[in-house]
Amino acid sequence: MEVFKLDIKEYILETGRRARAAARLMARADTDTKNRALEAIARIILEREEALLEANQLDVHTATESGLDMAMLDRLELTSMRIHAMADGLRQVAQLEDPIGKVTELKARPSGIKVGQMRVPLGVIGIIYESRPNVTADAAGLCLKSGNATILRGGSEALHSNQAIATCIRDGLKTAGLPEDAVQVIETTDRAAVGELLRMPEYVDVIVPRGGKGLIERVSAEARMPVIKHLDGVCHVYIDEHANLDQAVSIAYNAKTQRYGTCNTMESLLVHQAVAKDVLEQLGPMFAGAGVEIRGCERSRKILPDIMVATDEDYYTEYLAPILSLKIVDSLDEAIDHIETYGSHHTDSIVTEDEANAQRFLREVDSSSVMVNASTRFADGYEYGLGAEIGISTDKFHARGPVGLEGLTSQKYIVIGDGQIRT
Amino acid sequence: MEVFKLDIKEYILETGRRARAAARLMARADTDTKNRALEAIARIILEREEALLEANQLDVHTATESGLDMAMLDRLELTSMRIHAMADGLRQVAQLEDPIGKVTELKARPSGIKVGQMRVPLGVIGIIYESRPNVTADAAGLCLKSGNATILRGGSEALHSNQAIATCIRDGLKTAGLPEDAVQVIETTDRAAVGELLRMPEYVDVIVPRGGKGLIERVSAEARMPVIKHLDGVCHVYIDEHANLDQAVSIAYNAKTQRYGTCNTMESLLVHQAVAKDVLEQLGPMFAGAGVEIRGCERSRKILPDIMVATDEDYYTEYLAPILSLKIVDSLDEAIDHIETYGSHHTDSIVTEDEANAQRFLREVDSSSVMVNASTRFADGYEYGLGAEIGISTDKFHARGPVGLEGLTSQKYIVIGDGQIRT
Repeated sequence: MEVFKLDIKEYILETGRRARAAARLMARADTDTKNRALEAIARIILEREEALLEANQLDVHTATESGLDMAMLDRLELTSMRIHAMADGLRQVAQLEDPIGKVTELKARPSGIKVGQMRVPLGVIGIIYESRPNVTADAAGLCLKSGNATILRGGSEALHSNQAIATCIRDGLKTAGLPEDAVQVIETTDRAAVGELLRMPEYVDVIVPRGGKGLIERVSAEARMPVIKHLDGVCHVYIDEHANLDQAVSIAYNAKTQRYGTCNTMESLLVHQAVAKDVLEQLGPMFAGAGVEIRGCERSRKILPDIMVATDEDYYTEYLAPILSLKIVDSLDEAIDHIETYGSHHTDSIVTEDEANAQRFLREVDSSSVMVNASTRFADGYEYGLGAEIGISTDKFHARGPVGLEGLTSQKYIVIGDGQIRT
Repeated sequence: MEVFKLDIKEYILETGRRARAAARLMARADTDTKNRALEAIARIILEREEALLEANQLDVHTATESGLDMAMLDRLELTSMRIHAMADGLRQVAQLEDPIGKVTELKARPSGIKVGQMRVPLGVIGIIYESRPNVTADAAGLCLKSGNATILRGGSEALHSNQAIATCIRDGLKTAGLPEDAVQVIETTDRAAVGELLRMPEYVDVIVPRGGKGLIERVSAEARMPVIKHLDGVCHVYIDEHANLDQAVSIAYNAKTQRYGTCNTMESLLVHQAVAKDVLEQLGPMFAGAGVEIRGCERSRKILPDIMVATDEDYYTEYLAPILSLKIVDSLDEAIDHIETYGSHHTDSIVTEDEANAQRFLREVDSSSVMVNASTRFADGYEYGLGAEIGISTDKFHARGPVGLEGLTSQKYIVIGDGQIRT
């Protein structure tokens, strides 16, 4: 057992060393080369559709036998459409502007030196994810374009699928003359491998966990390097007393019902008392018609007598389901206080025609996305024009909100002189 | 003892709760109000010069009795000049542009929403530092201007000085109508207080340790929130075969001898073999004249027979002293490899007239500051035009290199719609 643990440790360390060496080569790769690699990977993935489906069937078979639930099985399964979507995703990343090497305007200083900042890769990015094999291609593509090396650790249930995709990626990298080790998939399902990965900050610059809360909490607690993490989305829509009520109804209904299981779905609706009756008499039947269970404060139950009562716990809850908490508030201040107290700093929207209230909401609500007169469901990388996202960060440090290519980079200072010394 | 520990824990938690509440008020404070607070603090510090000197004498007296070394005593001591420098520093921060509330250009998306990013404070910044009482005013000023609340934990040897300065700060905040709790100094010397501070990510958004390596390593290991940390400065100057040799000699001499104890001092000199004889025959006597001990590779000892031999360990060492490691290399590649292997990713400079070599060095050397034809000693916030710095980050995540006001902020996404819903 001890020997085996040492093997895992040595294997992960070797993976880290290879990634670090590959990262140096990736950092200097030019845009054309990186794009050629992305195109090649896309082509190879399409060419090997049959082999990918076969590898995936092995995983699906094992998972079915071991009783994986239907939702997980659905996420695990590859189809021809999903394989084409992977290839399309890689080609879209090839179209994105390359952030690497961009220099901010150089400013001359009194000493005579010129100072600017150059955008550079972070180095080695570790990605730990569950089920969906498409993450292997999506994440590798973004890391590749941003000049980073990647170590991928997928779920054990998707091992064969991930390895088959990884082979396509490595072959594509080779075709373009880039180091195969720029994308490595960890080829063991031993959970000790994750622990080792999280304990080598010398080889891994940042960790991105993609999956359930349990995974993210484990990674955050154990990682010895920075983590781009995404926790809850307890998102609010606040309908102000100065709202356009038609917009308010439409936005609140869309924010809740367009999809129930996403992190940017509204979980809590706040309504100013001055417009509560008008708004709720319209929204109540609409939500009831969609099968959404409302849990409201006492005042709201006077308008909608059939709804459940909301507990304090309800206001903290990310339901990810057709359930909605509801509260009538007396002021913008009370709405902001409520959001700051119960929210998760993900995405919150105000519906108002009052410019001053909109500005206060934008400045004072401390969330990764703050919106005026729009559905919270817009909070994602594609809708924001990032092209793609590696995740949505609910942290304030480094990247906040949807994280695209730029979130996988850093800036270093560059100084250009002509012999200046300090006196 | 157990009861006392609970007291410390409760005291630090209460400090955190107050800081979080103050942070919300600071985030919405306008620029004028923040500047009035900075000016008021500066004025009060000057008015209370005598009281500050008295409080400091208590600390100096105790420190002398307990046998603190001379360098530490020097850092601890306040003088009239140092008090005036503190006040000047605060006034300079008042002159800096306020980063908070700035919005990037809003971009219209196909859905009709407009998307931009707004610069916002990080929230609560914890600063843990040693000896120098001026850090209390400097750090508080930068955090205040960037709209953050601050919890300061100074060294136990400076407790009275720090409390006296903290009183000036709180009185200044009150004068300007800002919450006094926006700057809190921890009023216990119990080391358990630091542990508690590092364990409450719900109240502290980022920790900045300022002090020796031991402090920074302890904070990095224990902190449950991000750390802006500054480790070693093993800085290099590489003299390329295409260098202007007069510039090369002048830059190398300045980078080593202008100050020995700073993190941006050159610790290691790399010289291309084609120019080694010319350069070293000039630099050898100059360094000898300045009392700098050189430890070089075998080849360099053929040119400078009197120097010591460098071990592998020497090339990893931040001497902070009149000692220099020296190596002759055969190529730019070897220089870059050496820097990546032995350096600490702080500041490295190439001396060359060759544009292609300069560009490769800028792109491929993975350090927080990379320079062409300038002394490494320029790597600091004042020289770069940041106005002031809270520290120099040797990390790549979030802030890299000298950290000014912007490094104490984050960006959130803002979305402006006119009723858009997602379809």
